[in-house]
Amino acid sequence: MKQNVAQKLIEQHLVSGNMQVGEEIGLKIDQTLTQDATGTMVMLELEAMGIDRVKTEASAQYVDHNLIQEDFRNADDHLFLRSAARKFGIYYSRPGNGVSHPVHMQQLAKPGKTLLGSDSHTCANGCMGMLAIGAGGIDVAMAMAGEPYYVKMPEIMGVKLTGKVPDWVSAKDVILELLRRYDVKGGVGKIIEYYGPGVKKLTAMDRHVIANMGAELGATATVFPSDKEIKKFLKQQGREDDWVELKADRNAKYDIDEHIDLSKLEPLIATPSSPGNVVPVSEVAGETIYQSYIGSSANPGYRDFAIASEIVKGKQIAPGTSLDINPTSRQLLEQLVENGHIANLLSAGARMHQAGCNGCIGMGQAPATGRNSLRTTPRNFPGRSGTKEDSVFLCSPETAAASALHGKITDPRTLEMDYPAIKEPKKFATEGMLEAPARPDDKVELEKGPNITSIPDFEPIKDNFDLPILLKMSDNISTDEILAGGSRVLPYRSNIQRISTFAFEIVDENYYELAMKKRDNGGHMITAGVNYGQGSSREHAALAPRYLGLKVVLVKDFARIHLQNLINFGILPLTFVDESDFDLISENDILEFRNIHETIQTNNTFTIHVKGKDQPIEVRHDLTKRHIDIILQGGIINWIKQKQN
Amino acid sequence: MKQNVAQKLIEQHLVSGNMQVGEEIGLKIDQTLTQDATGTMVMLELEAMGIDRVKTEASAQYVDHNLIQEDFRNADDHLFLRSAARKFGIYYSRPGNGVSHPVHMQQLAKPGKTLLGSDSHTCANGCMGMLAIGAGGIDVAMAMAGEPYYVKMPEIMGVKLTGKVPDWVSAKDVILELLRRYDVKGGVGKIIEYYGPGVKKLTAMDRHVIANMGAELGATATVFPSDKEIKKFLKQQGREDDWVELKADRNAKYDIDEHIDLSKLEPLIATPSSPGNVVPVSEVAGETIYQSYIGSSANPGYRDFAIASEIVKGKQIAPGTSLDINPTSRQLLEQLVENGHIANLLSAGARMHQAGCNGCIGMGQAPATGRNSLRTTPRNFPGRSGTKEDSVFLCSPETAAASALHGKITDPRTLEMDYPAIKEPKKFATEGMLEAPARPDDKVELEKGPNITSIPDFEPIKDNFDLPILLKMSDNISTDEILAGGSRVLPYRSNIQRISTFAFEIVDENYYELAMKKRDNGGHMITAGVNYGQGSSREHAALAPRYLGLKVVLVKDFARIHLQNLINFGILPLTFVDESDFDLISENDILEFRNIHETIQTNNTFTIHVKGKDQPIEVRHDLTKRHIDIILQGGIINWIKQKQN
Repeated sequence: MKQNVAQKLIEQHLVSGNMQVGEEIGLKIDQTLTQDATGTMVMLELEAMGIDRVKTEASAQYVDHNLIQEDFRNADDHLFLRSAARKFGIYYSRPGNGVSHPVHMQQLAKPGKTLLGSDSHTCANGCMGMLAIGAGGIDVAMAMAGEPYYVKMPEIMGVKLTGKVPDWVSAKDVILELLRRYDVKGGVGKIIEYYGPGVKKLTAMDRHVIANMGAELGATATVFPSDKEIKKFLKQQGREDDWVELKADRNAKYDIDEHIDLSKLEPLIATPSSPGNVVPVSEVAGETIYQSYIGSSANPGYRDFAIASEIVKGKQIAPGTSLDINPTSRQLLEQLVENGHIANLLSAGARMHQAGCNGCIGMGQAPATGRNSLRTTPRNFPGRSGTKEDSVFLCSPETAAASALHGKITDPRTLEMDYPAIKEPKKFATEGMLEAPARPDDKVELEKGPNITSIPDFEPIKDNFDLPILLKMSDNISTDEILAGGSRVLPYRSNIQRISTFAFEIVDENYYELAMKKRDNGGHMITAGVNYGQGSSREHAALAPRYLGLKVVLVKDFARIHLQNLINFGILPLTFVDESDFDLISENDILEFRNIHETIQTNNTFTIHVKGKDQPIEVRHDLTKRHIDIILQGGIINWIKQKQN
Repeated sequence: MKQNVAQKLIEQHLVSGNMQVGEEIGLKIDQTLTQDATGTMVMLELEAMGIDRVKTEASAQYVDHNLIQEDFRNADDHLFLRSAARKFGIYYSRPGNGVSHPVHMQQLAKPGKTLLGSDSHTCANGCMGMLAIGAGGIDVAMAMAGEPYYVKMPEIMGVKLTGKVPDWVSAKDVILELLRRYDVKGGVGKIIEYYGPGVKKLTAMDRHVIANMGAELGATATVFPSDKEIKKFLKQQGREDDWVELKADRNAKYDIDEHIDLSKLEPLIATPSSPGNVVPVSEVAGETIYQSYIGSSANPGYRDFAIASEIVKGKQIAPGTSLDINPTSRQLLEQLVENGHIANLLSAGARMHQAGCNGCIGMGQAPATGRNSLRTTPRNFPGRSGTKEDSVFLCSPETAAASALHGKITDPRTLEMDYPAIKEPKKFATEGMLEAPARPDDKVELEKGPNITSIPDFEPIKDNFDLPILLKMSDNISTDEILAGGSRVLPYRSNIQRISTFAFEIVDENYYELAMKKRDNGGHMITAGVNYGQGSSREHAALAPRYLGLKVVLVKDFARIHLQNLINFGILPLTFVDESDFDLISENDILEFRNIHETIQTNNTFTIHVKGKDQPIEVRHDLTKRHIDIILQGGIINWIKQKQN
């Protein structure tokens, strides 16, 4: 059969399932990527699993999120991550090296390989002819342990690119055009594959820009072919040998067909506060700005900074405007310095920041109250900038630089100058970007600062037990209500004992105390309405209650990712067969579970009794055999330990 | 009479008093400097005074402290400061332009002038043949309003420099040598004037390094002559016309004589946690480091970064070591970029940060728990780095760079290379460093974000009152311990109500709660040992405890700026006549103050009783009539209001 690039990548890595849209498939993972905000937990999970060495072809740990170091916690995390990387056989990229996605692309990405990363923009490396997917931390930990990654077979959307972008229009406008057409849920359950004659006109880094913001479409992955542009990129990096060609078969089919004529595009901008609110720049031109921000994994390339430099060269930015330059890697920064671009930017009045994610994830550079901020970053969700009621626009570096000069949103086509031609460097030669791990024989101790604790052991679920209901909650409980984010809670992400004190505090401030009382006395369960666990994918929302003795969650239905997290940490997820039975149970009721081990293996539905009440309750589970195994072992960490012994 | 440089500067600006050591003199102030952490309060004070336009020759507002912008607060402050600068006739230096002291030196400093700044390192500009003094914000506001600055006529210590520093030894080692000899109180009540043949061998920026850390000696000011080196510096800046010669008369006398033979110096280092703990680097060589930090107003010069660049050029820093580069001005950064030094540093693995105070003031780059941090910054008080139990060493850029290469404290003389020769740029040409204010006729509104609150009203001190002692503290309590800097606290510098919650938290985490309990019930007092209030000039260290009901501070002796701040905010500063009486009082003792209004006006020493104890305590004050007036009015804001009516 004629195959597109996505199908080839999947077939070459398929270890279980059939390539039928919607069916669960298991994929072999060649490479992994973790960053510091999710990586500490991944490393603790590897420790808990008793892993000696990762089994992937290449795994890398980047430090790019928590770079501010207000106190010892971030710095301690960095030391811990380095020690874990050395111990487990992972490359380590230190603070100051830059954002995971472009650095991975420069240092390790290889056409034809799979990459799983605990960061939603992992999909960016799809630009290299890879199948690159963002996932939860423990999924990545499992991949590092050599386990397949399970996902439902996506639909493949083929986006045919024709023509060539006009002057003042660049890759960012291509992905903004797709967001204009499909909005932020248009890619859910899909892989987006670009093909056609227009692809050749896009450099590898241009493709990174487009692939990166596939995450904003909700897509599972973005895939580009591996062609001469990829070869050229690898040659710049001294890695020409890593190139293989990868392209769709002639007349390969796609599940969905789309087309963009690049020559018809104009400068676009996403207005506050969603990446899907896309309009032509000309429609909002003239609005006063406080800030123009260049950088992030959504515009990480040499040309993205060089074009801004050429636009402001010899001029001064508007008084009262902040032009924030956020280099995306030390390698790119060095080259931008050597070729005079950083000098141009500084001379025009730009503010230079360290290489990293920085303001893109709300770590600094927050805009002033009620002021407009123009950013080349991928997301402008409300408050993400750090300012609660912010007003963030997303655009290309051309638009950002033009706007900085005028202090107003400016269509770059109205600048009185020729479109600058950017010459890519022939070679990037920065040494020491990745620190190799210790040799397998070397003894490396994990360096744990006082805020870093190991993941506690969890006992397998018992066969017969009684559980009190500690919380009865309404519909649509989000993971933010289960375990809040924010600067009060986040510093404890590598400390389960400490972070668990915040569990459910928004729902019931006494939960922690009550749960701790029951913890060594059999534990507890909770109940809730529909869409339980919606929102962020944070695995701590399962892990922290589990630490406090949560054994069973009985709800009307689950949000998908949280359900997976509950299973991963050995919590039994049940739903009501008849939703109205929700009304039969109350907080402090005690539910009696009997012969559970055999029951869940043999039946999808079964009956439980409420102590002192007559009417039994019928419940169901939708667990696969693999899921049941995991739960009976007490979670995926025990499961993998068992499997590897 | 033959005069030294300090005497000439004072005489030329004397508006009241006699130049007798210890007598209060009033000085005309030509220039002022404010930074963002103190400047918002200064601008609110100008507003409260109803000032239209500052009356100084040149005033500048820098934004260098609160650069992180985790939320709207810092950004709002920046907008407020820019609007205030435009309104009141003040130059504005935006975020990213760098640290106030080197930028002021580059842009505005003039030999023969006086400079008052609301930053303790204002003394750095003494390198330019100026009388440059750090003071509390309200003193600077008064100077901007055209009022004289009052200070006790200091002793002049003449430090004769002979010889020339050996290779691998630089200006930082000169001031560390003086700190080794005199410790952190050795300069109190003194102006330190450098003279002699060794001065010629020091560039203007070398002198900045030495003058800057006069603050750590506790000195009122540091003075250098204005000679050909100053002319050369001004020429680099295109300001040759601002040069005038200023030198001591032949055979001028000094109150105290000191001598340093530069040729005898070796690399020195201040060990944790005081700038006075100075030993030769060789004594602590070999200790493992986590971090090597280059930057700050204590090593702000082109050569300070260039020498580090030449030392690491073509090499890689030790794995696991963070080499943090903090450029001190946009102008210097541009030149360092153009001459290849930034590329050298990046290539060796350095982490580049934005231009500003950054980690020097605890805004990021905090070291990991228990790890050593080597810094070229001026201060290593406990916790100032952001990490509570930190271990910070102060040293030269040579020592910091050499140590980064080895991952251990390293005497730079042991490097196997020749001492690099650094060529200063002929010209610095960065445009737009200072934004000129609006014209007097232009209407400018102050832009106040929601976190900017007005200064609360304070009641005058009562005549008879009892005060409980809430804190009894040891010697050398710094303003960092009274009210921390850092990213947690600094955002509230324009919000007294909120910032007061952090007062003394390092000393006693219960202070805020205890003080609030007593606040509306008469207030409280505190006691401490010698050198109370050393360090930063922040007036919030007086204002916040004052808001919490602090009425009297009784200590062995005071650091100069903090003493002035206490007076300015109407807190009665007392010392023990017999220091051993410190041992007679304890926390929670209640001291009885009787007939205070008349007493302090008629006597310098008087007696107070401790409730329930027999032995009375004799205390003294060293207040002038003007000081007493201010305290009896409840502070300088009430005083100036009274004066104006």
